[in-house]
Amino acid sequence: MSLQISKPTLIVSEKICRQNIQKMVEKAKCSGADFRPHFKTHQSADVGKWFREEGVSKITVSSVEMATYFSENGWDDITIAFPYNPLESNTINDLAKRVRLNVLIESEESLHHLNENVSEELGYFIKIDIGTGRTGITPENFEVLSKLKSKNPEHKLKGVLGHAGHSYKKLNKVEAQSIYANGVALLQKAKKELGDETLIISYGDTPTCSLLEKFEEVDELRPGNFAFYDSIQAYYGSCSTENIAVCMACPVVAKHVDRNEIVIYGGGVHFSKDRIDNSDSPFGTVVTLTSSGWETCTSARFTRMSQEHGILSGSDEFVASIKIGDIIGILPVHSCLAADLQGSFLSLEGQKLSKLKKE
Amino acid sequence: MSLQISKPTLIVSEKICRQNIQKMVEKAKCSGADFRPHFKTHQSADVGKWFREEGVSKITVSSVEMATYFSENGWDDITIAFPYNPLESNTINDLAKRVRLNVLIESEESLHHLNENVSEELGYFIKIDIGTGRTGITPENFEVLSKLKSKNPEHKLKGVLGHAGHSYKKLNKVEAQSIYANGVALLQKAKKELGDETLIISYGDTPTCSLLEKFEEVDELRPGNFAFYDSIQAYYGSCSTENIAVCMACPVVAKHVDRNEIVIYGGGVHFSKDRIDNSDSPFGTVVTLTSSGWETCTSARFTRMSQEHGILSGSDEFVASIKIGDIIGILPVHSCLAADLQGSFLSLEGQKLSKLKKE
Repeated sequence: MSLQISKPTLIVSEKICRQNIQKMVEKAKCSGADFRPHFKTHQSADVGKWFREEGVSKITVSSVEMATYFSENGWDDITIAFPYNPLESNTINDLAKRVRLNVLIESEESLHHLNENVSEELGYFIKIDIGTGRTGITPENFEVLSKLKSKNPEHKLKGVLGHAGHSYKKLNKVEAQSIYANGVALLQKAKKELGDETLIISYGDTPTCSLLEKFEEVDELRPGNFAFYDSIQAYYGSCSTENIAVCMACPVVAKHVDRNEIVIYGGGVHFSKDRIDNSDSPFGTVVTLTSSGWETCTSARFTRMSQEHGILSGSDEFVASIKIGDIIGILPVHSCLAADLQGSFLSLEGQKLSKLKKE
Repeated sequence: MSLQISKPTLIVSEKICRQNIQKMVEKAKCSGADFRPHFKTHQSADVGKWFREEGVSKITVSSVEMATYFSENGWDDITIAFPYNPLESNTINDLAKRVRLNVLIESEESLHHLNENVSEELGYFIKIDIGTGRTGITPENFEVLSKLKSKNPEHKLKGVLGHAGHSYKKLNKVEAQSIYANGVALLQKAKKELGDETLIISYGDTPTCSLLEKFEEVDELRPGNFAFYDSIQAYYGSCSTENIAVCMACPVVAKHVDRNEIVIYGGGVHFSKDRIDNSDSPFGTVVTLTSSGWETCTSARFTRMSQEHGILSGSDEFVASIKIGDIIGILPVHSCLAADLQGSFLSLEGQKLSKLKKE
């Protein structure tokens, strides 16, 4: 690799990322489902173009800010998959003038606020809790569904939406199938309660969408992390290490031979502090950068992290082979949070990839 | 509070922050030590002005980027308290033309690289491991110290520097005094090994600098987090909750009365995911915003967090008192990482406080 790197830099393999996208596009197509990938993982207009080249025209985001950014970058069909935030109603209204926008509703209060404060035409999904216990209407409360029909003719109920957050753990295909089937059953039940055959069922999470092949029971698929994947998804079994499309290139700044440690420039402000609790390399997978990308390095582990420092523990040979000023690669634990922390990415070919910036 | 808030926003109490600064300035003064506060906590030129108004003229930062930002904002005496990164030697050289710059050295390789690749005049400190086991020269390796005398006359050895990272835990004054005394003894021993009475001893970490009053044995103090403090420092005992100068204002977006939960817009991309493992409110302290600031809310805890969602668990009364669209305050677990994630802050008076942005 002949990239100009002087500080922690998130490198994206366009090839791997495009393969990940193609595979998921194909799964959605074969299942007869619309593909509305979640763009919160990359937050990048440039990476978004790779999706567009595979025929993707609808996207999911997790904030009004992200929706605004992608609307300014040519995306005009956007679902904000986060509970409707009444305090952002003005921005939502402005956005709905320019794009086909969907928001998420899970209470009468929120729907009432939307009806009263957003005059523009938009769609909304009802969030169903399909087992995660975070947001959405639980089956015990399905009687509220009939009250979530809009009183404002500009606001069209589009369907029911679920996210299997409880699939983010070590998972095999049988377990994934069970999570998917249970989720779909709840979404179907909610749709039936609403009594409208035209409503769509929107489903999505990276683990089940990665492990399973067919999603014929749903109308829309919304996975996100799969575009990059990461070390925790590999640990869970959603992908193999070879599918991970991002690598943080980190300068080596110190060596401590007596304790077999290497200090890299790369810490919580670059990776976030998500960790894999039961892994011997809890802060990411160590890789060696090569002329065409990277290769897993089995003789070193990423064991400690502070704000800017990363500490790798390695074999005698590993430590002896590394010099201060070298660059070591790390496949991040959680690519969404690592990507969020960057101002931009770098492709393996040296192209700067633009990203939403925090104002 | 009548601030215009629509999304997670880090609010800074100028009053509390200035009190924290004044207290530490006073301690340094009474100890006869120079005060070189670490600016990585706030990374803000505007917050920096509050330090300057207390007579601070020297600062510490943790990256070349931060040094560049503060140099552009009027600071001309800067120590980069992170191991010298050979890959940034050009930027370091440029920076050294404009400001009085100090870097950190802990190996012959790094010093050799500095000598050969940075032509400008600068100072360097030798990093001593005073017990943290992260970076720096351990007492077992002090024989290397004599080899860390610069061969380049432009590079002046300024002193020895230690950071008691092992003080970041529940700590009382007796334990803090012990960490400080042991650290100082090692720094004095290193100085003696170097055989130069003019060398200075630079010491700093928020827990011991907060718990102790006198630092007469050191020449320079470099704490950082104390300017804002945070929930984990209060948990450790370095400060009280009343000393915490920052609060994340978070919109309420959903309620789940049947499980006594409130969903806020505020997650890992706003706070980072540092947590207080043994706390019943592991992701921060819940506060109620008032007309003049905030007050601790004892009836709710911040129990779960994902990328954008925060889940608070509260009493029946708490949950009943909260409406979707309200704003709840959270005193972050780790203010350095939470601040790093913002594009800017907001003062309690509604002033936007500028911050270093990620490129």
